[in-house]
Amino acid sequence: MMQRLDSSAGDFDTRLARLTAWEEELDLEVNDTVRQVIADIAARGDQALLAYTRRFDRLEAASVADLEVGQERLQQALASIGAEQRAALEEAAGRIREYHQHQLQDSWQYRDAAGNLLGQRINALESAGIYVPGGKASYPSSVLMNAIPAKVAGVETIVMVVPAPAGELNDLVLAAAAIAGVDRVFTIGGAQAVAALAHGTETVPAVDKIVGPGNIYVATAKRQVFGRVGIDMIAGPSEILVICDGSTDPDWVAMDLFSQAEHDENAQSILLCPDSDYLDAVAASIDKLLPQMERADIIRASLAGRGALVLTRDLDEAVAISNRLAPEHLELSVADPEGLLPQVRHAGAIFMGPYTSEALGDYCAGPNHVLPTSRSARFFSPLGVYDFQKRSSLIMCSEQGVQQLGRVASVLARGESLTAHARSAEMRLKPPGDA
Amino acid sequence: MMQRLDSSAGDFDTRLARLTAWEEELDLEVNDTVRQVIADIAARGDQALLAYTRRFDRLEAASVADLEVGQERLQQALASIGAEQRAALEEAAGRIREYHQHQLQDSWQYRDAAGNLLGQRINALESAGIYVPGGKASYPSSVLMNAIPAKVAGVETIVMVVPAPAGELNDLVLAAAAIAGVDRVFTIGGAQAVAALAHGTETVPAVDKIVGPGNIYVATAKRQVFGRVGIDMIAGPSEILVICDGSTDPDWVAMDLFSQAEHDENAQSILLCPDSDYLDAVAASIDKLLPQMERADIIRASLAGRGALVLTRDLDEAVAISNRLAPEHLELSVADPEGLLPQVRHAGAIFMGPYTSEALGDYCAGPNHVLPTSRSARFFSPLGVYDFQKRSSLIMCSEQGVQQLGRVASVLARGESLTAHARSAEMRLKPPGDA
Repeated sequence: MMQRLDSSAGDFDTRLARLTAWEEELDLEVNDTVRQVIADIAARGDQALLAYTRRFDRLEAASVADLEVGQERLQQALASIGAEQRAALEEAAGRIREYHQHQLQDSWQYRDAAGNLLGQRINALESAGIYVPGGKASYPSSVLMNAIPAKVAGVETIVMVVPAPAGELNDLVLAAAAIAGVDRVFTIGGAQAVAALAHGTETVPAVDKIVGPGNIYVATAKRQVFGRVGIDMIAGPSEILVICDGSTDPDWVAMDLFSQAEHDENAQSILLCPDSDYLDAVAASIDKLLPQMERADIIRASLAGRGALVLTRDLDEAVAISNRLAPEHLELSVADPEGLLPQVRHAGAIFMGPYTSEALGDYCAGPNHVLPTSRSARFFSPLGVYDFQKRSSLIMCSEQGVQQLGRVASVLARGESLTAHARSAEMRLKPPGDA
Repeated sequence: MMQRLDSSAGDFDTRLARLTAWEEELDLEVNDTVRQVIADIAARGDQALLAYTRRFDRLEAASVADLEVGQERLQQALASIGAEQRAALEEAAGRIREYHQHQLQDSWQYRDAAGNLLGQRINALESAGIYVPGGKASYPSSVLMNAIPAKVAGVETIVMVVPAPAGELNDLVLAAAAIAGVDRVFTIGGAQAVAALAHGTETVPAVDKIVGPGNIYVATAKRQVFGRVGIDMIAGPSEILVICDGSTDPDWVAMDLFSQAEHDENAQSILLCPDSDYLDAVAASIDKLLPQMERADIIRASLAGRGALVLTRDLDEAVAISNRLAPEHLELSVADPEGLLPQVRHAGAIFMGPYTSEALGDYCAGPNHVLPTSRSARFFSPLGVYDFQKRSSLIMCSEQGVQQLGRVASVLARGESLTAHARSAEMRLKPPGDA
């Protein structure tokens, strides 16, 4: 069922490029609709928000205040879920918190030889908005992964939005919000929720940054408000790339490929291995295990359309291919993952050794599951505490220090014909001979 | 000439909000033009790039290779500029390099109690593109400020693009590129240059991230390619906010306001001070000094249209107002700037004490002059080494460690109906009783 590729074939590069190409369809109609929604929310605030929520989510409310979910309701949800679920969410939250505390960055400063103070202050954002999809794809784990880094950074106000189509709300999502310490929750969604968070309405507070996954309307809205507020990455379909030396149980690897494929028909699962017999074994495991899966249809469509089993010359070549693809999730399912790691250049998250299935990282190992897709691990990072911190440069010149710096600035400013810049530096200089 | 505001007036908040509002005009026509240019470059590569360069920059070339400026030409430029300019550029570059080295971030890892390894690897981007405006606003200091952080991060290939309208090129810009260690330079500009860097052509290499200022076509192109490549911030007009306790020479403060205003009629210069007489003195300095300025017309238009002298109750209120505006440049021109600093929440760069004019930071103090504008200091940071580094999460579970994590992941995955996720975790568990 899965495509087989051989890295020594003449057309390998072309076939691999075709398989992994993903061009986000630019939908001009969506673009225009979203632009109108945002303008309307900016102009009419709560009234527009109520109207869109009525139209798109079939949710009636007399006021936006009625769409707010209070802390009491979050605590109720937490009390209502099963003990096993609650313990699992709390354990995951604790591990995520611990991991992300390692990402906290501190302010720093130093003095140069002339006594000028230079440095950088690092502060938390004041507020952040978290978009949580509603309905089927409403995931409590995403609430933890988006809210906890903001909390660790020290963000004062976390506002979560989650659509409640026809009033339907997921208790696990509300429970996760309670555990993560989300401050306010509104049952709104779509471009109108993003617009409300970016512009603020009478009831929904404007935030400094909006994170979290969503459909094409949400993604388009985030792109359009970027600059007015910060946003996280632009997300494409999820991907896994497994590099295996042939020593891992083929059933394990098959299931790891499934775990990516079950997200979505566009998800991408690729296995690279230098052992052709092992690829046969994984293919057999796939055939054997697939019929047992609840989401078999999605998995089959994803593996057939975008998956591949790739024979490579050796493990080094497998890593080189992986670097070209810069996968979101990279499993190094090999006996010596630490030996291979130094060659890995681009990947959102690296799962090392046969025991480290991607699912552990998706839920509870500690690292974030919001990761760069579609080759963007070349320049994007996992969502982290650093996404909720920002910096201010510090400069304090002494009277002595400015004598040297002022002269340099004056020469460069005059070279750029910016005379006021030059003179503002020169005014601080002592007259020659007045040292 | 400058508007006078009083923070105790009833309509102060409204007037301040109106004065500082800046809504980037969304130009749908520019949007469409840019979209076509990008699609054309992606489809036709060099040929399209040559055609646009001919049309928009009046620059004829037989091939894109002819538009590349070799290292020899950069060295020639460096040799041709005056000794004073060269020394100033080199001193500035040295200081910028030293400051930015403090921003380098290191990989980290730890083991949890169960022996699972967790961490984050920090790598440099492989390549970066730097856009440098041509013509009048071609600033060598911007080359240093954009290229040096990339170099310090360890970026292997820095590709600079600078339009050369009708063949005109600024030797100071080329000299700065030589000093900063830029690897390749092409004389291309506009949306077509951004598209070439994002998609690559036969001759121009695709890069991982594009930074640097430009006109509306360049800014729109950067916004459109965001996601395919990284970009830096979305820049609005430049701003300075000076908080003064009345102890600084009013001529100095007037000139500091000019130094911002001379950039552009939309630039914003605001002074906050609790001493009304001092505001009068600065107004008098402005009247006295303005006629001496080369760019008096621009300065006058900027100060009259977007500037203000604001009387505040005290310094604490001045800082509170500043936090609302989150200015790009904040001067604390007060006797005890360190006393005021802890209250400052949002600012791109903070210039402390009367000697620290913004111009020093623009050129040579060390910190970056690429800073967040239009209130985006609430969530954006100065351009820095961190913009040219990215992270990969690391997870390596031991056989023992996975026993605990796998159970948690299984519960959470089943809660989200992602059964393949659950089973890939469960498969790694030992059967009960097999501990």
